[in-house]
Amino acid sequence: MRKIILNLATTLDGLIEGTNGEIDWCILEEDMHFDSFLESIDTIFYGRVSYDQWGNYQPDVSASDMEKQLYSAIQSKEKFVFSSQPRIDSKATFISTDVVAQVEKIRNQPGKDIWLYGGAKLITTFIENGLVDEYMISVHPTALGAGKPLFDISGRLNLVLADTKVFKSGVVQLIYTPNKK
Amino acid sequence: MRKIILNLATTLDGLIEGTNGEIDWCILEEDMHFDSFLESIDTIFYGRVSYDQWGNYQPDVSASDMEKQLYSAIQSKEKFVFSSQPRIDSKATFISTDVVAQVEKIRNQPGKDIWLYGGAKLITTFIENGLVDEYMISVHPTALGAGKPLFDISGRLNLVLADTKVFKSGVVQLIYTPNKK
Repeated sequence: MRKIILNLATTLDGLIEGTNGEIDWCILEEDMHFDSFLESIDTIFYGRVSYDQWGNYQPDVSASDMEKQLYSAIQSKEKFVFSSQPRIDSKATFISTDVVAQVEKIRNQPGKDIWLYGGAKLITTFIENGLVDEYMISVHPTALGAGKPLFDISGRLNLVLADTKVFKSGVVQLIYTPNKK
Repeated sequence: MRKIILNLATTLDGLIEGTNGEIDWCILEEDMHFDSFLESIDTIFYGRVSYDQWGNYQPDVSASDMEKQLYSAIQSKEKFVFSSQPRIDSKATFISTDVVAQVEKIRNQPGKDIWLYGGAKLITTFIENGLVDEYMISVHPTALGAGKPLFDISGRLNLVLADTKVFKSGVVQLIYTPNKK
C-alpha cells in the first residue's frame, strides 16, 4: 500500500506559520535533498486554500535553479484537493465528500507514495482519522511564540521515532510513524 | 563564566504540560544520562510555583533507584527561587527584585553551570532578557494539541543548533545556543 506522508516544516515551537502567515523562517537547502523526497511520491494532497496558494505556484525568474527544479517536479505530480466546495479544475481532482473512503481508495491504487501537503485543517482531518502513515517534521531553529500550530488536534497523539536527520542549517528532521499500540 | 542552561522536556508540539498539568508523557530513561547533566551543574533556578512543587520533592519509596539518585542529586544543589513575594527559606535563596542584575551576579560567581528549571513564566523572563546560554530541549514523541507552551514569548527567537541526541525511547534532545547575530 502507498504511504501517506506528512512532510512539512515547523518552528521549534511547533508552528507552521506565524500569526500573519509568516514562513520566512523556513529554510530550503541542498543538503535536505527535497528532490529525493519528490522522487519518492507521485501524488499530492492539498486543502483548498493551500492549493489555490501553492498548487500551481511558479517561482519568480530570479529564483534559484534548485527552487525552479523543485516546483517543476511538484507541478508534474497528480493532485487531489480536499474542499467543501466541489470544483472542476484541469490540473487537480477535487474531493468534497466521503473523504476517508476516497483517501483509502486512492491509497490502495498502485503508485508511489503520497505527500500530504496541508494546510492545517486538512492535516488535522488526516491525523484524527488515522490516515497519516509517516510524519516528516523539519524542526527549524526558530521559535515564534504565536501562530498556527501543526498539531491542532483534540486528543493525544503518540508516535514512534523512526529516524532523524540533521542539516547544515540547523534544521532537524524528525521522522515518526503512528503508534499502533 | 558559568552557563545558564534551560534543560527540559517538551511534547512534539512544544508544550511543557497539558491543559490539566499532565506530564505523564514525560520519559526518564537511563540512556539519557541525566545524572551526567546534574554532575555538570551546582545551582538550580526555580520559579516559586515550581519550587514549591518540585524544589524539595522526595520520590516515593517505591520509585526506581535511578529516580531516587536523581532527586538526591537535585536536593544537593544550591537553589534560587524567583518570586514576587520575598520569603525566608532554609533550603533556598529567594530573589524578588532586580532579577537581571542578580542573575548576572550569580552567573559571574565561580562555580559549575546553572540549571534553569522553570516554570514557564520564569523561562520567558530569562529568554526575553537574553539570560539563557544553552537550550537543551528533549522532544518527546507525543503531541497533546493543547497545554502550556515552552516558548510563551512576545517576539521571535532565533537559535543555533549545537548538538542532537537520540534516545532509545524516541526522545530527541535538541541543543541550541542563542543566535548572537
